[in-house]
Amino acid sequence: MSKDFKKIAKAAKQASLEIADISTELKNEALQKIAEMFEVHKDEIFDANKTDLEEAEELLAKGEITKSTFNRLRLDEFKMRDMIQGVRDIASLEDPIGKKLLERELDKGLTLCKVSCPIGVLGIIFEARPDVISQISALAIKSSNAVILKGGKESKHTTQKIMEVINFALDMVPNFPNNVIQQVFSRDDVKEMLECDEYINLIIPRGGNKLVKYIKENTNIPVLGHASGICHVFVDKSADVDMASKIVIDAKTQYPSACNAVETLLIHSSFQRASELLASLQLSEIKLVSDPEAWDIEYGEKTLSYKFVNSIDEAIEHINTYGSGHTDSIVTSNPERAENFMNKVDSAGVYFNASTRFADGFRYGFGAEVGISTNKTHARGPVGLEGLTIYKYKLVGNGHIVDDYAKGKKKFHHRDIV
Amino acid sequence: MSKDFKKIAKAAKQASLEIADISTELKNEALQKIAEMFEVHKDEIFDANKTDLEEAEELLAKGEITKSTFNRLRLDEFKMRDMIQGVRDIASLEDPIGKKLLERELDKGLTLCKVSCPIGVLGIIFEARPDVISQISALAIKSSNAVILKGGKESKHTTQKIMEVINFALDMVPNFPNNVIQQVFSRDDVKEMLECDEYINLIIPRGGNKLVKYIKENTNIPVLGHASGICHVFVDKSADVDMASKIVIDAKTQYPSACNAVETLLIHSSFQRASELLASLQLSEIKLVSDPEAWDIEYGEKTLSYKFVNSIDEAIEHINTYGSGHTDSIVTSNPERAENFMNKVDSAGVYFNASTRFADGFRYGFGAEVGISTNKTHARGPVGLEGLTIYKYKLVGNGHIVDDYAKGKKKFHHRDIV
Repeated sequence: MSKDFKKIAKAAKQASLEIADISTELKNEALQKIAEMFEVHKDEIFDANKTDLEEAEELLAKGEITKSTFNRLRLDEFKMRDMIQGVRDIASLEDPIGKKLLERELDKGLTLCKVSCPIGVLGIIFEARPDVISQISALAIKSSNAVILKGGKESKHTTQKIMEVINFALDMVPNFPNNVIQQVFSRDDVKEMLECDEYINLIIPRGGNKLVKYIKENTNIPVLGHASGICHVFVDKSADVDMASKIVIDAKTQYPSACNAVETLLIHSSFQRASELLASLQLSEIKLVSDPEAWDIEYGEKTLSYKFVNSIDEAIEHINTYGSGHTDSIVTSNPERAENFMNKVDSAGVYFNASTRFADGFRYGFGAEVGISTNKTHARGPVGLEGLTIYKYKLVGNGHIVDDYAKGKKKFHHRDIV
Repeated sequence: MSKDFKKIAKAAKQASLEIADISTELKNEALQKIAEMFEVHKDEIFDANKTDLEEAEELLAKGEITKSTFNRLRLDEFKMRDMIQGVRDIASLEDPIGKKLLERELDKGLTLCKVSCPIGVLGIIFEARPDVISQISALAIKSSNAVILKGGKESKHTTQKIMEVINFALDMVPNFPNNVIQQVFSRDDVKEMLECDEYINLIIPRGGNKLVKYIKENTNIPVLGHASGICHVFVDKSADVDMASKIVIDAKTQYPSACNAVETLLIHSSFQRASELLASLQLSEIKLVSDPEAWDIEYGEKTLSYKFVNSIDEAIEHINTYGSGHTDSIVTSNPERAENFMNKVDSAGVYFNASTRFADGFRYGFGAEVGISTNKTHARGPVGLEGLTIYKYKLVGNGHIVDDYAKGKKKFHHRDIV
């Protein structure tokens, strides 16, 4: 590890230990101050964003970035308003830290308490969108974690200005710890972050498929996120054709570049109204592909692979083989077959007669979203604040020793209080 | 990946999908049958163990294995009885799968349910103790996970025989899926396991420091466990000397090679009766070391490093710097200082006036223990069956689409049912 990075990582670790033990009120005061300072300094942020956009225009002209990257870079009044409101919304959420998850008397005078606590230091690696920095910083503060952020070089002026405003705001809050939110800049820093398992406890990548894949393959630190969203809709033999059409159109066209958009339509070969269904999709400007190059393409546009399957088991197997474990839906009028599908499809979200587009922390009612995880440990599906927490066990005794129990002088009674 | 290993891994994945959806009754029937078959075939298992012990005796004579490895290898009537009872105990535990963790009506007719489900395929890598195979297999079956086991070569005859009996038992249970419990043998298989993130979802190492460290450093798959147990007792200035002595003696001598045994004693420099405390420890045959080579040595015997600190903050900082995040205890008569210690020490277990040796799944009342984790994500501290589960989100609608909510035609009401 370079000396510079080690210094930042150690400071983050120290900050994480300090913020672990501060009050809900202090955290909320910090969040409100950040929102307030964004309002006060928003013109400076817009100016910094203008500089990034000017440089990005050249990159766009040279073909070095895409139009969609360019668009994500832009911070307008609308996005700024959302960004500020987002911080205030997080302030108003329940504190995820210090919750008693279990309270159990092991024996007289010996009480075990399982309490939610922060994870520690989060490493955030994100691409173009500069508003991510504010959202993630706010989530980290609310969950008492420290963060090291690495943004894309295209947004460097904007993110640096936003960071400045955040830390300016935090400096105004008495007793708020230092170095809770830090930023690094170079490509080397990403490499160092991924190797820094001594200090960083969780990596959260926010960006495209390639970035997330690279990160997952190059670190021993747990990574929270998803590389791809290959979602399916399976139209069963007994499906209502209108419902199927409505759901597929929503899942494909409502926001085609979202990770929870459908990429593959599976149709039971005994479904009688398949041609009607396919015709209705084409009418909604969906480009249908019956022989895709592969079954795990994330189109990001109004293109949809489709395939006929001979049984529900074939559908389930296709999904478990080619899917990304994100969100998959069955359209059927048979609840038993739906239950079978939901139990056997190994995905974070398994839906029955609903669009895959519902896979989202806000729609689930979490109030905030860290991201969507396709992991099989820690957190899965849309992740709210809870995903940034773990727990510790507090044991309070009065001189209790194990030897008394090993020798049979005392016995555990394990009586739950909470 | 070699063809052979890929075949095993794919079979495990398939088995994991099948066992995910079987009933509690079928799982318990399988566990009872395993216990029964262990009883029927125990002499064959003892014979296999004898072969391993004979070979191990030669290795011991040549100094290639330690006496303690040799002892862990031995399966006697006592261990066999515990092994069989352990399987029956796991059968009697509550099923951790299919629990409703949340049920929320997002809107009329659109219901979200968060349900516990298995992780998938577990990779178990363990050293000498052959009884581990039975415990882990039983835990995997109860939590509907498939496993691939790799035991140490020293116990290969015993583990192979135990595996044979387990699979013989499982074959007798109608409708129980195939390939839920598989075993691999070679050192290359470990390497393949660690690289097999396509099929293996969690690695559980059961063995010494070196093994666990090697595994953690050589895989992108989540690892559940702890490399070392550097536990501390901090004797505060207001501690009762008798209580402090009793706790330290228990934490050091009750089972010195356990991971939750204390390795370092920190004493507040204003504690008046330090010399009395140290004398009492020496009387209990504890070898005291005031200038250890390092502050993160796991002795595994009745040796204890000790150090005077000038404040509780110095104690906390020492623990957070040199500890392994396992279990640390404060002995004090001041509950406020205890609370401060418990909040600021970043360990899985933070204790107040109790021996560190309580850190154990059975003592916590979990009924079974997968192991003890010092991770900061997924599961921390003693891990019971719950640590082998994750969850999925089931969403049941009636043709619901996101566009209706995006356009404001409908609104979420997020009403919790569970």
